[in-house]
Parts: sequence; C-alpha cells; structure tokens
Amino acid sequence: MNYFSSNFKLGILGGGQLGKMLLNDTRKFDIYTCVLDASNEAPCKIASNEFHLGDLMDFDAVYNFGNQVDVLTIEIENVNVDALEALEKEGKKVYPSSKTLRTIQNKAAQKLFYIDNNLPTAPFSRFAYLSEIEDTINNGGLKFPFVWKAAQFGYDGNGVKVVRQFSDLEGLPTGECIAENLVPFKNELAVIVARNALGETKTFPVVEMEFHPEANQVEYVICPARIPEAVAKKAVEIALKTSKAFNHVGLLAVEMFQTQNDEILINEVAPRPHNSGHQTIEASYTSQFEQHLRAILNLPLGRTDSKVSGVMVNLVGAEGFSGNVIYENIEAIMKLDGVTPHIYGKKQTRPFRKMGHVTIVNEDLNEARRIAEEVKKTIKVISE
Amino acid sequence: MNYFSSNFKLGILGGGQLGKMLLNDTRKFDIYTCVLDASNEAPCKIASNEFHLGDLMDFDAVYNFGNQVDVLTIEIENVNVDALEALEKEGKKVYPSSKTLRTIQNKAAQKLFYIDNNLPTAPFSRFAYLSEIEDTINNGGLKFPFVWKAAQFGYDGNGVKVVRQFSDLEGLPTGECIAENLVPFKNELAVIVARNALGETKTFPVVEMEFHPEANQVEYVICPARIPEAVAKKAVEIALKTSKAFNHVGLLAVEMFQTQNDEILINEVAPRPHNSGHQTIEASYTSQFEQHLRAILNLPLGRTDSKVSGVMVNLVGAEGFSGNVIYENIEAIMKLDGVTPHIYGKKQTRPFRKMGHVTIVNEDLNEARRIAEEVKKTIKVISE
Repeated sequence: MNYFSSNFKLGILGGGQLGKMLLNDTRKFDIYTCVLDASNEAPCKIASNEFHLGDLMDFDAVYNFGNQVDVLTIEIENVNVDALEALEKEGKKVYPSSKTLRTIQNKAAQKLFYIDNNLPTAPFSRFAYLSEIEDTINNGGLKFPFVWKAAQFGYDGNGVKVVRQFSDLEGLPTGECIAENLVPFKNELAVIVARNALGETKTFPVVEMEFHPEANQVEYVICPARIPEAVAKKAVEIALKTSKAFNHVGLLAVEMFQTQNDEILINEVAPRPHNSGHQTIEASYTSQFEQHLRAILNLPLGRTDSKVSGVMVNLVGAEGFSGNVIYENIEAIMKLDGVTPHIYGKKQTRPFRKMGHVTIVNEDLNEARRIAEEVKKTIKVISE
Repeated sequence: MNYFSSNFKLGILGGGQLGKMLLNDTRKFDIYTCVLDASNEAPCKIASNEFHLGDLMDFDAVYNFGNQVDVLTIEIENVNVDALEALEKEGKKVYPSSKTLRTIQNKAAQKLFYIDNNLPTAPFSRFAYLSEIEDTINNGGLKFPFVWKAAQFGYDGNGVKVVRQFSDLEGLPTGECIAENLVPFKNELAVIVARNALGETKTFPVVEMEFHPEANQVEYVICPARIPEAVAKKAVEIALKTSKAFNHVGLLAVEMFQTQNDEILINEVAPRPHNSGHQTIEASYTSQFEQHLRAILNLPLGRTDSKVSGVMVNLVGAEGFSGNVIYENIEAIMKLDGVTPHIYGKKQTRPFRKMGHVTIVNEDLNEARRIAEEVKKTIKVISE
C-alpha cells in the first residue's frame, strides 16, 4: 500500500496531546490522517486532514469511523474494543489489536497476562467488588499496606491508591479492582518497544521516572536512566519479551519497578506513544511518534539511540487554579539552554491536568537535570 | 503580549513548504496562526488555525489579512510590500520589514545595499533592460562570461544564468537585470542569522552547499561546512554584519561564495527560514523554524549549535515526469541510518519542482554524506 498518497487514510482514535504530537509526523510524511474525538476543542482538530466528532466508547461511532480508514490506531486506551474487533474481522488493520487493548484495559486481565506469559510482576489479588477487599483483610487473606487499583479506566494516576488502613478504602470506586503488593523500589523505569508487522523490533533507551508524590503523575523523565548496565539490559529484555507476548504492532511502553535487590517487575504497559518517551522528540534519532507511525505502517523502524541526553518535565495545572490557562514565566524558561516547551493547546487548566511538557536536552545529563529543576521551579500553569 | 493565548494571532504570508514547517512549531507552542495563500491546495491549509485564500501580490488581500493579525511574517519574498508598509505605518509588527523586503525583492537594489553598507559582494552592473546588456558588450563595457540575474522575482535558480556568448541571452526576460562578475569559487556557503527585536543575535553553523549543475538548485547542504575555522569565522562575521545592516528581525539566510583565495562574497540573502537550514530540524538544538518564531515574537533565542552532523538532500521532481506524484523507493531510504524524509504535500510533480527534502544525521559527517549519496541515488520523485 502506498502510504504517501492521498488514497491512503490513517485513522486515530482520540484527539488529545499524544495525537497532536503524532500529527506532527503524519504532516512530515504527508500521510492523510483522520481523527475521532468527542470534543470539538480537541488539540487534534487542527493538523488532521479530517476531524470527526464522536464518542470513543460508542460502538457505532468507532465502527463507522474505522470503516473510512485503511489503518486504525489509538492515542488513548479507552475506546470501544468491540467495534475494533468487528473491524478486524472484516480485515481492517487495527494497531494495537482489539485483543491487546482488551487485556490492557482491564488491570486484572493485564496482570493475569503477565503471569500467563511468565513475565515478572508484583504479586496481586483480584476482587470483583471493593467490599471483597475488606472481607479478605478481615479474614486474614490480605495485609496492609497494599496498592489498590481499579481494574478499569485508570489514567494518569487516577484509579491507584496506596492503602495502609481501612479508612484509605473510603470513597474508592466500588467496582472490580486488584490489590497488589507494595513493592519497595529504587527506581521506576520505562522502556518503549517499537515492533512492526514483520516482527522487527527496536527499543528506546531505558528511562528513569520521578513521580509527583501527591498527584502520582510523572514529574521528570530522565534519559538515559542512571542505572547499572546490567539492570538496563534486564529491563530491555523484559520489555521486548512483553511486546512479543502481545504480538504487538506499534509502540508498547513498558513501565517497570527496579526493586531494592535489582529485580525488574512490570508495573503496567501502554500500547501507544507514552509520556515516558516525549524527550525522544528532541533527544533521539527518531521520535517515539515517528517510530509509532513507522511501526503501524510497516515501514522500516528508525534509530532509537540518543543524540544527546534528555530530561522531560510535565507541565500540569497548579493547585488552586482552574479556568483559562496562562503559562507563567514561559519566556523565562525559554532563556535556558536546550529548553523546548510543548504546549498541548487545552484552553482550560485545572489542578494536575496535563497541559504540556518541557524537554531539556544537553550533552551532559547532569546539566540537563539541573536545568530541568530550574524549569520546574520557574514555570507555573495557572489561570487568568 | 501573551503569545501563548488565543488572543494573539500570528499571520504568515505564503502557505508553501516553509510555512508548513513553521506551523509545526506554532503548533508546538500552541500559537494561533493565520495563513494567506492563493492556492486552495497550499501545504499550510492544514495545521493553520485560519487559512485565508488570497493573492500575495494584491494590496487589499495582504492589507486586509494583515489587519486581522498581531504580528505578520512571510515564508516567501514575493508579496505586496506597499501593503506591508501601510500596515507598519499603522503600528503593525511586520518581520521582515517592508524596507528590507523592498531591498531584497530587487536584486539590483540588494547589490547596491551591500555596496552602501560596505559588505563584500561580486562586482556588477545594473541594466534597466536586457537590450542594454548587448549594447554594453558591443561597446566594450562588459565582457563574457558574466552572470545575468533578473532584478525581480527570481526564485530557486530561476532568473539566473551564466552568459558566455550572445546566444545565451536569447529568450531571457527583457526587463531590469544585473550582470555580475563570474566568481571562481571553491565553495558556496550559507549562514543563517537569527535576530530579535532587542537586537539579540545567534548564528547557525556555516553550511556548505552543492548545487545541481543544470537546475541550479541546492542538491546537498552539509553541516558543518568542511572549511578552515578562519574562513567559517569570516563568513559568520559577514552574515552578522549583514543582519545588522538590515536592522533585521527574524531569520536572515546569507548565501556566500568562498573564492579561490578564501575571500567571502555575499551572493544573496533570504529574510526567512531557508533551504540551507532544513537540517537544523534534526541536527540542531533549535530548528531554524522555531528560531524564526522566537525571533519575530521577541522571545529568547535558542541554542544554535548542532547535536550531530547533518546533510540535507532536496527532493525535486525528476525530469520527464509531470502529474500526480509518487515517491519511488521512499521505504528503501527509510531503512538507512538517521534518515528522515520530509514530504511537502504538493500533489503534482514536475521537473525540478521542490517536493520535499531528506535529512541525514550522524555523529560522523562523512558517514552522513555517504548515506546522503545513497539516498540521492535511491529515491526518485516521479508521477503515476
């Protein structure tokens, strides 16, 4: 198929920031792209060839949209998987596959997948209802502390809570969930694997993530991770094995814990471009977005090594501010060496909403990390 | 002024490939952008917030468009300068200025500007009509060979011809022109200067250009130029002096000859992002397009040094092919190390039309140059 012609149409489910950055590369390659999103203010409304309004969880909306394109991908997991499965049965290329999405959408199913495929992950128990957790604690089958995770629709730290006592369970969603052992870890790591339909794979360097203690969102992504080579090698091997187990096509971001004794445990995966790969735009020979395109279009994969070191800082809405967004001191951070702000184009800010990110690149990782702290201290996402 | 809000509007005159690449960075910063172009198929129709149809040489079209934006820039020099001057008088920010554009639009005026400002350039004579050239040769005032250049509307090698005998003058446009001494040169070099309204300047590294012998279009741009440091230093100094002489705001691409005895002579300038800076997208800390935005919005300028070496290959329409474009072997070049194709999105190819470019980046310049040759031999822009 000739992707570089207007007879070819790529469909993207979701029109948020990941889609927006992906569109940069569809524009670069002049690939005709259609986007489906429920919001008329979606960042992807601009730069797509066709923007379609529709609910990503609605069977008909997804099915009818998918029928108009040649290859279908996602920028968010929460889409109607039945529609994708129906499209696949009719021969449509859907990456990631409905099977992979179904497994990943449900955290319990995702964990069972790791067990079934002999992939390392923290021990856990599965519960149909939150109330079952209390019963199990009461009868001695589960001990504090543990990590509660909603089985469905968690995103960016929502749907995850460390539970140390009964009162921590109050107010949580009552539905299906898992209780995972609290893993004491040295580092949170991530590896993004690209795999095309021919089974060709490439991995981006292992990155290290630092999370905001309250919001449970990534604060810094550091590339390369400052870990021993043997640990990095193990993380890459596990990521590759995971991608293969899913028979995945496209990007798979594998988030992992490096435990106190340097074990690697899979935390969770995302079958798409990921926050832990944003620094690839400036730091890598091939950005994760271009690589995702190459993978799903079965093009040769690009080089994944880094030109320079990179640190990524998320720009999230400051606490106490809601409304029309202002990026306070953005000009001040643009004075700093190797600093590139990415503004996602969401009009309204609210506490901890992802509004953009800033990449800091430098020959010297420590210098990039130092400047990243300065960026973090200087810029503030507030409202008018 | 808050550029990062939807109350601000940036206007771009021209919707071609340079505008398209500029839009990548307006999207990155979420800067609201309006584009004026005469073609409904302009590459900038997508990714601009507003696309306006109109003739860039028409006073009313440019004036009315300019009135709707806060800052006005160009991606092509051939625009109605009277309209820009009228807008400037009313306080509109226009970068480059109408004065600079008027000087640059006319090659005779441009050459006189260099003389007036003590900037080195090849000796030349100015003629109101082509017929005056013949008269001057006949009366001994001009000798073969020389370079004929149309005073107005030259673009990409059109409007330039080496004249070795009377017959070479046949068929040339009859209007205002110059005859320039044919300079025997070792290299064609270019330096892109960025300057903001505060007078802050930064220069990208000196690049070396290789031209296609027939089409007189750049075939390879090599960054950094393989020249002695003293020559590079001289080229940068002259470029900076030129930018200052124009009191320029935005990018100024200064094309120069390195003569046999290492003199530097200015060939011509372009007051905008330029073909000689495309490799900055992948090779530099800051791309020329982001830098142009930073300069015209009076933001701090970004780092202009390179992360890695870069070579750029223009993708021009092959001879003998006109019609719906096909990029033959594009997948084959994407297998090569560090290769990124940029497809401009023009539907129709014709011989020597600029349809895209390919950047090759590598730690090792010689390796990048070797791969560039492979790219050049492999990909072909043909028609259906």
